[in-house]
Amino acid sequence: MAQALRVGLAGLGTVGGGVIKLLDANAALIERRAGRPIEIVAVAARDRTRDRGFDLSRFEWVDDTSALATRDDIDVVVEMIGGADGPALVLARATLARGKAFVTANKAMIAHHGIELAQAAEDSGAALKYEAAVAGGIPVIKGLREGAAANEIARVYGVLNGTCNYILTTMEQEKRDFSEVLVEAQVLGYAEADPSFDIDGIDTAHKLTILATLAFGTRLDFPAVAVAGIRHVIAADIAEAHALGFRIRLVGLAEANSKGLFQRVHPCLVPLDHPLAHVAGSLNAVVAEGNFVGRLFMEGRGAGEGPTASAVVADLIDIARNEYGPAFAMPVASLAQAETAAAGERRGRAYLRFTVADRPGVLAEIAAAMRDANVSIESLIQRGAAADGSVLLVMVTHESPERCVADALDRLAGSQSIVGTPMLMHILDV
Amino acid sequence: MAQALRVGLAGLGTVGGGVIKLLDANAALIERRAGRPIEIVAVAARDRTRDRGFDLSRFEWVDDTSALATRDDIDVVVEMIGGADGPALVLARATLARGKAFVTANKAMIAHHGIELAQAAEDSGAALKYEAAVAGGIPVIKGLREGAAANEIARVYGVLNGTCNYILTTMEQEKRDFSEVLVEAQVLGYAEADPSFDIDGIDTAHKLTILATLAFGTRLDFPAVAVAGIRHVIAADIAEAHALGFRIRLVGLAEANSKGLFQRVHPCLVPLDHPLAHVAGSLNAVVAEGNFVGRLFMEGRGAGEGPTASAVVADLIDIARNEYGPAFAMPVASLAQAETAAAGERRGRAYLRFTVADRPGVLAEIAAAMRDANVSIESLIQRGAAADGSVLLVMVTHESPERCVADALDRLAGSQSIVGTPMLMHILDV
Repeated sequence: MAQALRVGLAGLGTVGGGVIKLLDANAALIERRAGRPIEIVAVAARDRTRDRGFDLSRFEWVDDTSALATRDDIDVVVEMIGGADGPALVLARATLARGKAFVTANKAMIAHHGIELAQAAEDSGAALKYEAAVAGGIPVIKGLREGAAANEIARVYGVLNGTCNYILTTMEQEKRDFSEVLVEAQVLGYAEADPSFDIDGIDTAHKLTILATLAFGTRLDFPAVAVAGIRHVIAADIAEAHALGFRIRLVGLAEANSKGLFQRVHPCLVPLDHPLAHVAGSLNAVVAEGNFVGRLFMEGRGAGEGPTASAVVADLIDIARNEYGPAFAMPVASLAQAETAAAGERRGRAYLRFTVADRPGVLAEIAAAMRDANVSIESLIQRGAAADGSVLLVMVTHESPERCVADALDRLAGSQSIVGTPMLMHILDV
Repeated sequence: MAQALRVGLAGLGTVGGGVIKLLDANAALIERRAGRPIEIVAVAARDRTRDRGFDLSRFEWVDDTSALATRDDIDVVVEMIGGADGPALVLARATLARGKAFVTANKAMIAHHGIELAQAAEDSGAALKYEAAVAGGIPVIKGLREGAAANEIARVYGVLNGTCNYILTTMEQEKRDFSEVLVEAQVLGYAEADPSFDIDGIDTAHKLTILATLAFGTRLDFPAVAVAGIRHVIAADIAEAHALGFRIRLVGLAEANSKGLFQRVHPCLVPLDHPLAHVAGSLNAVVAEGNFVGRLFMEGRGAGEGPTASAVVADLIDIARNEYGPAFAMPVASLAQAETAAAGERRGRAYLRFTVADRPGVLAEIAAAMRDANVSIESLIQRGAAADGSVLLVMVTHESPERCVADALDRLAGSQSIVGTPMLMHILDV
């Protein structure tokens, strides 16, 4: 029998526990597929005494996670701790510096420190793998790095956060508002106690940054992502969007144009005939458009114990098979530093929702601002006044440069007729 | 600069030409991603004089395709000839025997001779890659071999033939019958002059055989696939299925159960909320169900110059990167010989369409046969008589063992009330 691939596992939360369960449940077939057994040798976590529902006594317990990096009886460190910095990053650096393989599901760390870590892996000849960091069990990293590698990619985008998609889907099905559904999702364990990373789009932006690097051969550039979350989406947006033939999804999108690389996370109106409109509940999906392959669509479970463990162990199998190479598909020195393309010249349709006072002249004022900004209106819905006398005015513009729509909103800033901040969402016409 | 990967290309039809075009168009980015250039050194095809719309003068022309296998200045042979046997197989054997890498899009050859070729590749240490053989540009081979490798797969299935899906989609959209749409598809070049391989399900069965081997770790077993095509689907089936909440798709499905491996290609009724129901036109899609990852869905273009070239060159990039291993995910000796599971005990709903004489007692006769076979009826539609006096009777059964539905049809064989052969389609309740 070939020598086992010996794993040190740091972090025994849901995802770390999933890796143990998977390696137990599928041990025989993994050995057949990987060509050798994959065995956990040692584990490390914060609290040794906690009951995790599975037997840890057969693994050596290590108090200091960093010790996993230096042991001679460990070939690969699997990091399931989380956090962009702190112990996860310390462990990654120590492991790669020793020339040991490193596998992680940590999107924040890869988005922020991926270039440094990829360089360290290159320098020491180690593997750095992170399939679970984006879209959970869906092999999108492999899909871009290898499956679509022959293509110039025009655009990569997707639904990358299951919590947001669960909330938006539930809002639609139950015709309820955001804050209510969020609280329920927290109770059910679908949203974190501090949900900001998910609902404000940060998590999606981390994942998008990684996809963009693989798709365009550019250096990770998280600060260049324009980010908006779903906090300001109301039930009426979902209902009106549906009446107009759309579903609302939090979409992370990166595209290369003549100005550089455009990266944005934003709630979008997705036409009902687009595959992303059918990505329901906590599912994730990614679309990549290649100049020879056309549109590739991949959908599956983007988070949770089982799907994440599936991706982590797929990385381990690649390592056991010795089938791996540069973390971002090419050596770090080959990655380009992309210019950031501004949104302004992008052309597209937009959805605008205004809450307005119910009095004469309001529509004329808004219509004039749109005209003066050179934006024409494709469709418009005004519903009767709510109990507080306010009126909802919803419109979809014709295709126009985004800077014109921004100009129209600027012209309306400070208007006495408009209550609160208008809602702007772009339409995914790709 | 690293040494180029030197390619010998056999076959200069649509797909072979696509490989040349892709390597030209994306040369710079392929070199970045692969770590070295990928260069065609020599080409071989039947007719040197034919104008193919691109310049061949820069490649050395070889009259005997087999010569590509023996030249020292070629690292990889790309076979775009086609056909399960004949020159493609001769070339594959010669190439692998010399320890050279071999890349193909030839599903028939892999389905019939894949085990022999994988063994030859193992013996000589060569790569054997065939991503383009199944679902064109969609990286499903990689998805199963690597992306989902940590999972026990319960079931793999999909829409694997673009010609059939184009015909079924067009029949639905235009409410036209099979033979008419087929002729039109032939004129438009979407169907071959001899369409039998596609429409009778053989092509789908070749692809399914390959997917099953990767999913279940079993030896290729093409003769074990139960195959039916779409020739007998009529416009009324599509309309009635839609009225009942289904779309008709030619589905190849393989699943492992306690009896062994079940493999079938069959037109199926797919519920409208299943992702395969939305795979339109000539697209392909594959679903794999893993015990940890859950349901993975991949969709894209399954044929044609661009998508096929994308998959072929992805294989070349894997080879240039030295990231490859056993063709069927594990050594040939590790592949199991699966028992063939019979359909009889499978439980599911079925769609039945009878053309019956318009006279008293017919419904009673059919209903009695169903009762005696212990099959109960979930829904039933009878439309008024056609011009020739015949009546269409369509039903969906409740879930029952397939042998019971077969028994009901046996009981009705020879009935004077039924015109022609009843149509049986299974419902994809997975």
